[in-house]
Amino acid sequence: MGRRSLLLLLLVFLTPGAATPVPPALRALSSLHISTSFKYRPTVALEYSIHYIQQKVDHFGFNTDKTFKQRYLIADRHWKKDGGSILFYTGNEGDIIWFCNNTGFMWDVAEELKAMLVFAEHRYYGESLPFGSNSFKDSKHLNFLTSEQALADFAKLIKYLKRTIPGAKNQPVIALGGSYGGMLAAWFRMKYPHIVVGALASSAPIWQFENIVPCGVFMKAVTTDFRKSGPNCSESIHRSWDAISRLAKKGTGLRWLSEALHLCTPLTNSQDVQHLKDWISETWVNLAMVDYPYESNFLQPLPAWPIKVVCQYLKNPSVSDSLLLQNIFQALNVYYNYSGQVRCLNISETATSSLGAQGWSYQACTEMVMPFCSNGIDDMFEPRSWNLKDYSDECFKLWGVRPRPSWITTMYGGKNISSHTNIIFSNGELDPWSGGGVTKNITDTLVAIVIPDGAHHLDLRANNAFDPTSVLLARSLEVRHMKQWIKDFYASLGKKHGVTFDHF
Amino acid sequence: MGRRSLLLLLLVFLTPGAATPVPPALRALSSLHISTSFKYRPTVALEYSIHYIQQKVDHFGFNTDKTFKQRYLIADRHWKKDGGSILFYTGNEGDIIWFCNNTGFMWDVAEELKAMLVFAEHRYYGESLPFGSNSFKDSKHLNFLTSEQALADFAKLIKYLKRTIPGAKNQPVIALGGSYGGMLAAWFRMKYPHIVVGALASSAPIWQFENIVPCGVFMKAVTTDFRKSGPNCSESIHRSWDAISRLAKKGTGLRWLSEALHLCTPLTNSQDVQHLKDWISETWVNLAMVDYPYESNFLQPLPAWPIKVVCQYLKNPSVSDSLLLQNIFQALNVYYNYSGQVRCLNISETATSSLGAQGWSYQACTEMVMPFCSNGIDDMFEPRSWNLKDYSDECFKLWGVRPRPSWITTMYGGKNISSHTNIIFSNGELDPWSGGGVTKNITDTLVAIVIPDGAHHLDLRANNAFDPTSVLLARSLEVRHMKQWIKDFYASLGKKHGVTFDHF
Repeated sequence: MGRRSLLLLLLVFLTPGAATPVPPALRALSSLHISTSFKYRPTVALEYSIHYIQQKVDHFGFNTDKTFKQRYLIADRHWKKDGGSILFYTGNEGDIIWFCNNTGFMWDVAEELKAMLVFAEHRYYGESLPFGSNSFKDSKHLNFLTSEQALADFAKLIKYLKRTIPGAKNQPVIALGGSYGGMLAAWFRMKYPHIVVGALASSAPIWQFENIVPCGVFMKAVTTDFRKSGPNCSESIHRSWDAISRLAKKGTGLRWLSEALHLCTPLTNSQDVQHLKDWISETWVNLAMVDYPYESNFLQPLPAWPIKVVCQYLKNPSVSDSLLLQNIFQALNVYYNYSGQVRCLNISETATSSLGAQGWSYQACTEMVMPFCSNGIDDMFEPRSWNLKDYSDECFKLWGVRPRPSWITTMYGGKNISSHTNIIFSNGELDPWSGGGVTKNITDTLVAIVIPDGAHHLDLRANNAFDPTSVLLARSLEVRHMKQWIKDFYASLGKKHGVTFDHF
Repeated sequence: MGRRSLLLLLLVFLTPGAATPVPPALRALSSLHISTSFKYRPTVALEYSIHYIQQKVDHFGFNTDKTFKQRYLIADRHWKKDGGSILFYTGNEGDIIWFCNNTGFMWDVAEELKAMLVFAEHRYYGESLPFGSNSFKDSKHLNFLTSEQALADFAKLIKYLKRTIPGAKNQPVIALGGSYGGMLAAWFRMKYPHIVVGALASSAPIWQFENIVPCGVFMKAVTTDFRKSGPNCSESIHRSWDAISRLAKKGTGLRWLSEALHLCTPLTNSQDVQHLKDWISETWVNLAMVDYPYESNFLQPLPAWPIKVVCQYLKNPSVSDSLLLQNIFQALNVYYNYSGQVRCLNISETATSSLGAQGWSYQACTEMVMPFCSNGIDDMFEPRSWNLKDYSDECFKLWGVRPRPSWITTMYGGKNISSHTNIIFSNGELDPWSGGGVTKNITDTLVAIVIPDGAHHLDLRANNAFDPTSVLLARSLEVRHMKQWIKDFYASLGKKHGVTFDHF
């Protein structure tokens, strides 16, 4: 995939869908590559060891016996062989070390649960590339990048760990994940309940498929965040799209816009203007996801409550077009230049050149078909409908594959999942992905936890002095459920062996 | 696959394993091709319509969008749109029409359950060939023959039926199957509980894998059947192996044996003698599976309680080798020539030239790795150990693939399946496959039904005047469970829609 394909890649997210919600961790990865300074660091150094396991490239076919090395991390400082547990992070679309560093919750609860922490990298991401540098070459090499193959990797890895680590065999394993990784955690419990006793699926939009939820919920939620974060904020953004169009039509408009927004590469035509709008839209989407209550560096180094900071520049929608765009620049600058070291803004760098981006683009073009739309009335974005045909055509151009939009529901059940047990679905109300998530209890053991002041999987992040009470409560509920699953596991094990375990 | 490969095919079953338990329905299919007369016919004519659905060749990869036609049958004479149900037969390794004709239970209960009957053919069997006549050409074409792909076919078919048949949408679907089809029914409920409300898994040896049960249970159970069916019967068979060896070593021994056993093709070397023994062993195995209480034609046209008939010729083990073998011939003749029209016995016709045999041979060489062994002490067979390496080498020679013996357990949970619900495991105690089946309740909703006088999935066969009480009881229990699942489904549907359904 050279430079040219990357532009095409942008198109997949930016053209057919609405304002381009690319899964979070994907962008997260990108920010790692772009940003040069880290303002926020974890307070404790994380100690883990790095391992590799040989996995079949194809678990579901026997024509090839080819294997590849899947990377995983282990942290066992607090693990107890006696009455302990295994917390298994179901890696999603990015480098596993980065996820490990951004999932402080697991580290924070390890001692209490006497837990070994395992972070498993998702195939086709990070170092776990089935065909090395050829992994993204064409649809033939990408053919084994599916959620089913990833879950099978996890299942085989856990069986391997139980077989080879003394003391691990008779311990309960709990799956944890956020975002796409949260979907994987939930699906893992649904499909492999013999391997994990339960799952914490944080900010997992398992219903953002087909017609399960309206395609507009996502952009509406982003808009609500901006509306609540400052007077006239969403209205200013809403007005900005026409302002850009009007400015772009003027004689020196493109040049003026390029300079006012400090773009690294000047705009030269109307297609560039569309790219600019898409890039700005995605910036607002990103901000909604990472609207955390403290200074952080998830997608970018950012101040506490970044949307509030952004909105300080967007109080007045009724100014001239040029003043409005100068304000928009100030707002964008909060996101792209909190470090103060960025000299220009690069509008081709929201979907990045990282492997993660390629992998997710393919997944979005095959299984992970999430319809998005905006109408400019319920949300602050330009109207854009969901057009599966265009989407499919773009996918075919990009990867030579066509999406199967109903497959995920066929495979994982859509709304009809009540026969499963022991899954926690947690969602932050600030997080636009919560619209496609489970936010009401389904049964006693399929529970929803809603965090009013939470953005994208805030609960999975490390404890912080500025954490709102709602996330502290959520985490404590999550631990309570996990303890119950562990207790039930040992009780059932004791029944089998005629002994009782004294635990917790 | 020409003639030469067929001999190799035999080797897979006959050489590495013990006395060659080939899955029942496979041989069933073969008997259709071999036998010329049907003594037993269903008392009512079965009325069904034949349909086809386009299925993706590969549900788990996107490199090919190729489709094939899967065949299925529908019988809806007793179906009620109001409060009805759908009984879905998860087709196994053979022609679906043959299974449809041999699953009278579904026809017998259709009216009571107001049920539509659907019989879905398994890919790579019958007419449902993904690559037509090339389907068995090589491991590349066979790559999509797995239980996972078959279950995905079933899931998509049911979604399609619900979408297209008016009145089907809000009806409960129950999976039913026998033998490998019973495993599929159970696994279908485990993996797709959003699609089927429950499963009747008849004679499903889901534990005949890896080390879950001892490899000798199967041949031991066959032996028990013969031991119980007549004095000295199993002892006579036990003695026959050495008798064959001694006779074969004599100058005219091979000729004598060929004539005494009325073989179509004379034995010419020691390899032929081994084939002969394997073929005889498989005959006893088959008889144990179809030891039904009435005249039937499942694997062959047979009298009632055929092993008792066989054992009438095997009362005296202490006769001379030649007399013993003449008696063995009489016993074999019960199985191969109940019609009285067969002129010679063909020892290459237990694993047959049907497509079904090819398909199962491949499945046994990939996912369906069932260890079998005999020791000649607990059973009446020649000792043969389970040797995975030899088995794997044979598979590689035959199909260019290597078995993955632990995969089925990783995928479907082995003994650790207690978190699932609504599965009935029924087993006949006469059936050698019951050794690998679930014969004790696991939970309130994972129940085992044991039929002391039952052979291989007797409960799925049509009502018969000679049915023992135990199978009548089993069927009535099965219906009671199914009614409960249907009731629960409508109760939960009613709760959703705020209405109650008056049902049953």
